[in-house]
Amino acid sequence: MDVPAVPAKVDPDALTAALDGRWAELKRDVRTQMRAEEFRGTVGLDAEAHRRQVLDQLRKLAATDRPALGFDSAYGGLDDVGGAVVSFEMLGYGDLSLMVKAGVQWGLFGGAVQLLGTAPHHEKYLRRIMNLDLLGCFAMTEHGHGSDVQHLHTTATYDPPTREFVVHSPDPGATKEFIGNAARDGQLAVVFAQLVTGGQSRGVHAFLVPIRDESGSAAPGVTIADCGAKAGLNGVDNGRLTFDQVRVPRDALLNRFADVAVDGTYSSAIESDGRRFFTMLGTLIRGRVSVGGSAGCATQRALTLAVRYGDQRRQFQRPDGEEVVVLDYLGHQRKLLPALAKTYALHFAQEELVAALHDLAPDAPEEAQRELESRAAGLKAVNTWHATSAIQTAREACGGSGYLSSNLLADLKADTDVFTTFEGDNTVLLQLVAKGLLTQYKEHFADLSPLATARFVAEQLVDTVMEHSAARRFLERLTESDDATVLFDREWQQRLFEDREEHVLSSVANRLRRGSSDLFEVFNSVQDHVLLAGRVHVDRLVLDAFARAVGACADPDAQMLLTRLCDLYALSTIEADRAWFLEHGRLTVGRSKAVTAAVNALCGELRPHARTLVDGFAVPEQFLAAPMLAG
Amino acid sequence: MDVPAVPAKVDPDALTAALDGRWAELKRDVRTQMRAEEFRGTVGLDAEAHRRQVLDQLRKLAATDRPALGFDSAYGGLDDVGGAVVSFEMLGYGDLSLMVKAGVQWGLFGGAVQLLGTAPHHEKYLRRIMNLDLLGCFAMTEHGHGSDVQHLHTTATYDPPTREFVVHSPDPGATKEFIGNAARDGQLAVVFAQLVTGGQSRGVHAFLVPIRDESGSAAPGVTIADCGAKAGLNGVDNGRLTFDQVRVPRDALLNRFADVAVDGTYSSAIESDGRRFFTMLGTLIRGRVSVGGSAGCATQRALTLAVRYGDQRRQFQRPDGEEVVVLDYLGHQRKLLPALAKTYALHFAQEELVAALHDLAPDAPEEAQRELESRAAGLKAVNTWHATSAIQTAREACGGSGYLSSNLLADLKADTDVFTTFEGDNTVLLQLVAKGLLTQYKEHFADLSPLATARFVAEQLVDTVMEHSAARRFLERLTESDDATVLFDREWQQRLFEDREEHVLSSVANRLRRGSSDLFEVFNSVQDHVLLAGRVHVDRLVLDAFARAVGACADPDAQMLLTRLCDLYALSTIEADRAWFLEHGRLTVGRSKAVTAAVNALCGELRPHARTLVDGFAVPEQFLAAPMLAG
Repeated sequence: MDVPAVPAKVDPDALTAALDGRWAELKRDVRTQMRAEEFRGTVGLDAEAHRRQVLDQLRKLAATDRPALGFDSAYGGLDDVGGAVVSFEMLGYGDLSLMVKAGVQWGLFGGAVQLLGTAPHHEKYLRRIMNLDLLGCFAMTEHGHGSDVQHLHTTATYDPPTREFVVHSPDPGATKEFIGNAARDGQLAVVFAQLVTGGQSRGVHAFLVPIRDESGSAAPGVTIADCGAKAGLNGVDNGRLTFDQVRVPRDALLNRFADVAVDGTYSSAIESDGRRFFTMLGTLIRGRVSVGGSAGCATQRALTLAVRYGDQRRQFQRPDGEEVVVLDYLGHQRKLLPALAKTYALHFAQEELVAALHDLAPDAPEEAQRELESRAAGLKAVNTWHATSAIQTAREACGGSGYLSSNLLADLKADTDVFTTFEGDNTVLLQLVAKGLLTQYKEHFADLSPLATARFVAEQLVDTVMEHSAARRFLERLTESDDATVLFDREWQQRLFEDREEHVLSSVANRLRRGSSDLFEVFNSVQDHVLLAGRVHVDRLVLDAFARAVGACADPDAQMLLTRLCDLYALSTIEADRAWFLEHGRLTVGRSKAVTAAVNALCGELRPHARTLVDGFAVPEQFLAAPMLAG
Repeated sequence: MDVPAVPAKVDPDALTAALDGRWAELKRDVRTQMRAEEFRGTVGLDAEAHRRQVLDQLRKLAATDRPALGFDSAYGGLDDVGGAVVSFEMLGYGDLSLMVKAGVQWGLFGGAVQLLGTAPHHEKYLRRIMNLDLLGCFAMTEHGHGSDVQHLHTTATYDPPTREFVVHSPDPGATKEFIGNAARDGQLAVVFAQLVTGGQSRGVHAFLVPIRDESGSAAPGVTIADCGAKAGLNGVDNGRLTFDQVRVPRDALLNRFADVAVDGTYSSAIESDGRRFFTMLGTLIRGRVSVGGSAGCATQRALTLAVRYGDQRRQFQRPDGEEVVVLDYLGHQRKLLPALAKTYALHFAQEELVAALHDLAPDAPEEAQRELESRAAGLKAVNTWHATSAIQTAREACGGSGYLSSNLLADLKADTDVFTTFEGDNTVLLQLVAKGLLTQYKEHFADLSPLATARFVAEQLVDTVMEHSAARRFLERLTESDDATVLFDREWQQRLFEDREEHVLSSVANRLRRGSSDLFEVFNSVQDHVLLAGRVHVDRLVLDAFARAVGACADPDAQMLLTRLCDLYALSTIEADRAWFLEHGRLTVGRSKAVTAAVNALCGELRPHARTLVDGFAVPEQFLAAPMLAG
């Protein structure tokens, strides 16, 4: 490789600075607090003790000003949306039950009150939510409708004589399911229900419904059940809620986007029920962003554990009798180093997402809001699937030691496992991303159903996706003779990703247009292709973000190391999908094989820096105190 | 596709008959017993209660004649090795802690006494082991040496004056680690230690060492620690053992392969220490075979749960307002159906392996023994990695419901997770397979170290691996015009697998021969290629076994269904590795894309039979009683 070598020693603090970016100071504060003994992990606690500990830790967080970050300064908040998300994400280094509980309280519950409610709700509740005087739930998911929340069954029927809404679960499928904070601690719930007034259903709206009285008993008409043991996250008190004709006052409706007058007259600035609901949902993307980010932090922690172990564990002898450090094996490097490169890549893409969320002006055009929702959905899916896969790999890379709870990977695996299917099922989310691309954000696309995807495409597909795009023309200028260097050319890598995205998208669009009249069958026959379109779009976003972060790195040595790591991300991603590139004439056989050789070479080149690279994450040492690392 | 359609209804019992094969009667007996309430699962038990329940269940098993299957009829056994393995495997449908505990007691501990000991050991112990009067451990793995057991540190030094062996742990790395049955119940351990006599080390041998006295306290000089909480398998009492100059009589040596005379003279029919140790290990492959098989049963259970759920769960509406059954989505079929096909494929390969183990004559040539060891290693690796991946997929396919412990997938995931790294780390095992192929079993290959691999190859590589093999010539006769039918031609599929195996193997051999003089570097630079050679070899074995099983299926309707399922296994395997086939000119671009289209078509064709296919596994209903399936 005709590229400058990485210096023998790179300062991990320089990597930390590059990783921490815009909210570096806040991140330092969180790390400092998380180092306290009271934020210790959970090995050995039973569910009740674990829940108690998490609530205690939540109160410790409430004593800082970080819960205020995400809220309006008019009510004691700090108007720092990005900081709020960062502070949730960082909890992903520690007990993920705390991350989820904090996310439910301040992100989902508090966020819904702020973003779906109006001044009277803010005045009455926001301070109490921030300081934990009021614990709450976000009751959207139902037993019968998890992904397809637009069709949930709970009803809230307005009763003009009493000026009340009657909240009701009409069937077992309407039971609110997996509701965090419900089984033990929650007092008030934001309940999503079909609003009915004047005998007419108006779609899903959010209502504030007390679920417990002062004594902690279930409120009249409310039945609360504990979801019981879960694979992980047992410090979160997930519960089921059912409502039997529960009456709440008219102002229980969070009425930013729609209202019901005293006489029952319905009004909303958004005419379509579906569009209104997805506008409401769109305001709530912080939760999805936070889950993706905390999955990233958990992955960083797992890889730190596995790389440190692999860097000291020895097994089998060399000819001279010395035992080989396992991370010196190519096979072991292949397991951990591409995963590490992808973790960096996703981190930088996440940083950009958080910044974009933070900087989104309240009066931004709707397309910008849609683009942000799409990016949040795609990155959440890719980040959480990567967490599932990388944490699994990390466990296996530590052998039997990785299986002992004391070595921390067991809980990491179990706790993060649900991330791929909560806050939006990843498959549904990737579909959403593809749909956004297909309709080029010209229409509101957030309706999650496949049917809507097919309909939009059939009716509104725009023709901006072209073969022989700029990316394609660039790639065609290259010849076989460029092989020696082109793999490490960032522009080549980025154009290759861009070209793949454009081609996959245009070909899926063509297949959808050619389809028969049965919209479901049309969509379903190309679903694998649609999902691919979503994935390769995210791949492109991620590589571009990594490339920008390398460019922005202030320390020259760290920048050289990140350059090679970005190569490893790009080339291992190309390698994994090289069948596609071969099938579509984007890689020759020779260059495809060269990609594999380059990944191997990069593994060898980066191996001496593996410890530095994980130390750059600066995971608080308390969460790395695994006995297997004691020697 | 110009192939006969599968009948609309296929009898699952006919599939069960095809799956159950040679030990069908025994399997029926096990299923009958496992249906009893006392073999219920473990949701909600703490570790101590779980351990107690597993021991109770173990006693229930001891009351049957199945523990006798694996033992010599001279001591009350039934001389049915295959039946013994099958009876362990089948426990994989239920609580995997019981499977492991039974495997430790009768497979590893009892097996070592039988296979490494001689008549006096058999006379003294076998009956008591079968009836659980004597609970034991298999103490091989050490803290410092898990995969590289040849270099473990525990010593057993013969002391002629007292005619005793002194068993000792000389350093912390010598601590016996993850030893099943040690923390709570075991009385006697088979301890693997470096035998030292006359001042000379003779390599690893096995010794019977009491670890607890009559009262249950640790025996003098023995320290027992509990490994504590694990990700799963918490019904197994894994422990750590250290020995401080523990004295055992001379006949504690399991002396089938080597002996020490009263005066300390060492004798063995096998000269090389390494070769002797690996001959000993080779006799103990039943454990590895059982783990692979029980991973298969656990996978069958997980896929049964996920397919049944996917066959009733509805989400999102069709244009007519009807909600779509999620298994009707191509994306969902893509997750579950290729995994189901592979599960069938691995089942049939496992059946053949068990039969080969059963039928191996005591005086079989060493090459046959080596081939069996290699097959056991390879299938264990592929079976357990498939379990990890398929159970993960099953969990995700059930969304949040799959995350609740009550729905059974959480424990399945956690319990099977360690299978990929115990009873031989999968990466090490695949390397072993490749080494066997490279040396064509001409030399004893079971030494696990990469160094030995490189050395064998450099010194002894045989030239039987040829390009333009029979498989290659067959494939070259086909032209593009055969595209429409060739993908579904079993011979084409099998020859393609065979040709890939031969090419990967010959090319890795060439790379090893061309390497420099540093054996470690030579080996390490091609380790990814070596692992590929192991994997594609197993792929070929598995497809061949599936094809034979289809041929042997007695029911014509079931046979047609299995024919299509075998196509799905073959084509989804080709699809996953199509980059290799494209890079090596084995698939044209057109045919490669046709493979993807064929997998989609097969998913659609098999979807109506998905429920039948999982019902064919005949998993006892008690282990499928997930609330999420109640409606």
